[in-house]
This record gives sequence, structure tokens and C-alpha cells, in this order.
Amino acid sequence: MTISEKPSSPGRTIRGGATRDGILENAAALFALKGFEGTAFKDIADEMGITRPALYHYFASKYEVLEVLIAETSESTAEEMRAVRRRDDLSPSEKLHSVTANLVRERMAAPQRFRMLDRTESALPTEIANKHLAARRAVLSELTAIIVDGIRTGQFRETDERLAALSVIGMCNWVAWWYVPGRDKSDNIPATLADSAVAMLARPKHRLPTALGPAGAIAQIRDDLDYLDRLISE
Amino acid sequence: MTISEKPSSPGRTIRGGATRDGILENAAALFALKGFEGTAFKDIADEMGITRPALYHYFASKYEVLEVLIAETSESTAEEMRAVRRRDDLSPSEKLHSVTANLVRERMAAPQRFRMLDRTESALPTEIANKHLAARRAVLSELTAIIVDGIRTGQFRETDERLAALSVIGMCNWVAWWYVPGRDKSDNIPATLADSAVAMLARPKHRLPTALGPAGAIAQIRDDLDYLDRLISE
Repeated sequence: MTISEKPSSPGRTIRGGATRDGILENAAALFALKGFEGTAFKDIADEMGITRPALYHYFASKYEVLEVLIAETSESTAEEMRAVRRRDDLSPSEKLHSVTANLVRERMAAPQRFRMLDRTESALPTEIANKHLAARRAVLSELTAIIVDGIRTGQFRETDERLAALSVIGMCNWVAWWYVPGRDKSDNIPATLADSAVAMLARPKHRLPTALGPAGAIAQIRDDLDYLDRLISE
Repeated sequence: MTISEKPSSPGRTIRGGATRDGILENAAALFALKGFEGTAFKDIADEMGITRPALYHYFASKYEVLEVLIAETSESTAEEMRAVRRRDDLSPSEKLHSVTANLVRERMAAPQRFRMLDRTESALPTEIANKHLAARRAVLSELTAIIVDGIRTGQFRETDERLAALSVIGMCNWVAWWYVPGRDKSDNIPATLADSAVAMLARPKHRLPTALGPAGAIAQIRDDLDYLDRLISE
């Protein structure tokens, strides 16, 4: 079954005017507010203004809602990052830019989910908690691998790759804490943060004569001679 | 009264072997786990293995504990950042490095507090919530001012100063989510993240002869002449 065949594909309107994504985002907000244990399946239906049978059409239980939330946040993120890392048509900088922009876009699309996952972590059923943890580790490991590759090929500066990966992840995750859909102008946020991630890791470029052409090389020589001249005459 | 005269100065052992900082960190963990509403003053004493009267010696109520937690996390952070921003012996890069390292150190010293503040935000009494929000805004505004200054003086690249400030704050805040005292080697974390913040904002440096000295300038001239030589002989 392809994604487009799913009855519950994101954004598609279901009974009562609710969408599957709307249910997930509202459930995430409820879990965040009342805790996973403190939220009943019926509360999710009430919050959406739909009946419990209408909700059952999409989710069998609040556990399934939570499992889907985790699968769609951390698990699918790790898979997408792995796919980008394995591409051989992209440089490490391009890979870092792509995965960072993607992390930011995901958090902007569903900020409540990310905050909820953090808040409910201690109350998650063991099996779900393990899946979530494994997915978080996979995200860290994929990003670290891209950074290691960038350092190895000289595009990135020498730095602790784990701390660098955690810094990029933190910058992206925090979007879920400050981004307010509708209030913040959103067009440039993913690209701006991706640029920042690349700038954070990029090896400082030295001025190379080949990049400047013969006129540039001559201009540089003049600069250097002027400098030597000033030294002598001081 | 100076800080050293406070009966409750950080790290000082109080009755029952508990420290004021220990009480605060344990209370933060309880608030995070059970919610602020769900935590009784007595729970904090029980958790520390001290009597309620011993706890009363330092805090009048759980509200006071929470107020101190907020004052010591967000309010004092904003004040320290303001002091650094106003110094005229530091460049914008040095200010950014200093405040970033400080943010990271604070989160490493008390990770539970930062996660707790986020988790209890929706349950905070209005007055305390307003203080917390004002302090968060002050931190963002101080950091943004440092970045604006760096862009204006040409040390930092042109970028959206608010997004840049939020990126640095996110990178620092996230430390509270991944840092495990004792597990993670901690010596280099504040400096490494501060280096990353500066790298994220720094304008790419051009090779300046004055930075390299006369021998460097001569070496550069040789490079440029070699390049021109190759161009002619091609």
C-alpha cells in the first residue's frame, strides 16, 4: 500500500471535519497538558468534537496514537536522514544543509508533538519508550556520520563530532519551543537554520589565488607589498 | 548582605546533609515528574530525607522554591548576559563566546531545572509565569543585541539576528536534554559549544597580511607568483 492509498493520509479530512494530522496534533497537545496517563481516548475525541467511533476508525487506542506520533516524528526522521547520508551526489555540506532544513520543517509542522514526546517520556510504556529512544539514537548517529565524513574530506573543521551533532539537533529541536505557527514569518526559517548549521561546521576558507583569477592574484601581491612597504618605513 | 553571607549559599551543606542547591535540583526533578500541582512541600522534604521544619529553614513554601528556581535560572542568566553585553573591553565575538559558554555551564550544572521549567510552564501561577516569560525574553533580547552589534561592526555575517539568537539558545538549552552528569566527559563542552556559536555567526575571514607577519606576506606573494607562472605556461 503506498502512502497515497492510506485512508489516513496526512491532511486528508475525515468525519467531523478533523484530519488524521489534526487528531495527532491535538492528541499530542492533550498528552503534553494532562500527561499520557491522564488522557483518556474519549478526551481526544471530545477535543476534536468527533464521536469515539469516528476516532476508532483511525486509531484503536491512545497507545496506537502515541505509537504513530513517535513513528512519524523520530522513526521516519531517522530513515530520511539515512537516505540523505547514503546519497553519493551530495557533499557533506549539502547533506548537512538538507537534513537540518528537514528537521526544522518537521518541528514547524507539528511543534506540539516534539514537546509532548519530551514531556511524556517518563510515562511512556516500555516498548514505546524503547522505540523512541532507538529512533533518537539513530538520528544522532546519522547526523554524526555526516559530520565525520565532512571532517574527513576537509569540508568541515576539526571538532568533536558528537557535540557538533547534538548542537545542530538542539538548534532544530528548539524550534518546537519558540515557533508559533501564524505568528512567526516562516518562509526562511528552515534555510536560515540550515545555513547556520553549515557555517558552524565549515572549515574557514583560505583565500586561494585560483578562485580569484590572475587579476585577483596581482591585487593580492600589491596588498602584500603595500604591507611590507609599511613595515619597512615604520 | 553579600552572597557569601547567605545561610543558603549554593553548595553549602545544611541539616540532614542536604544542600540548598540539592533541594532545588531535587524539587525541580519532582516538579518535572509529578507536576507542580501534584507535588506537596512535604514530598520535597521526603525526597531529600530531611524533616519539613529543616526544609522550612530555607523555603517558606513550594511556591518559594519555584520562584527561586526561576530567579536562579532565567532571571540571573539575563542579568549576567546584560553585564557581558555592556562591557567595552570585549568584541562581539568574545561576548558571544562568553555568554554561550555560561548558558551551557548553567544547564550542565542543573539540567533538571531547565526541563522542569518547560514542563511546568502551563501549570505555573500567573505571577511566576510572567516573571519566567519576562526573563526568557530578556535572555533573547540580550543575545540578539550582541549579534546585532557583531553584524554592524562586520565581525558577524549578515543574517536574521533573531533566528541566530534562537539557534544559539536552542543549542545551549538542549544540553539539559542530553547531558548526563558523570556519563558525559564535561571539560570541553562549554568551550566547544561557544566555539560553534562563534563559528555559526563569524563572517568568513579573508587572509589578511597583517595577521601573518612579513614572512607570511612573502609566502603569499610566492603562492600568487607560482599561480601566475602556471597560468602563463599553460
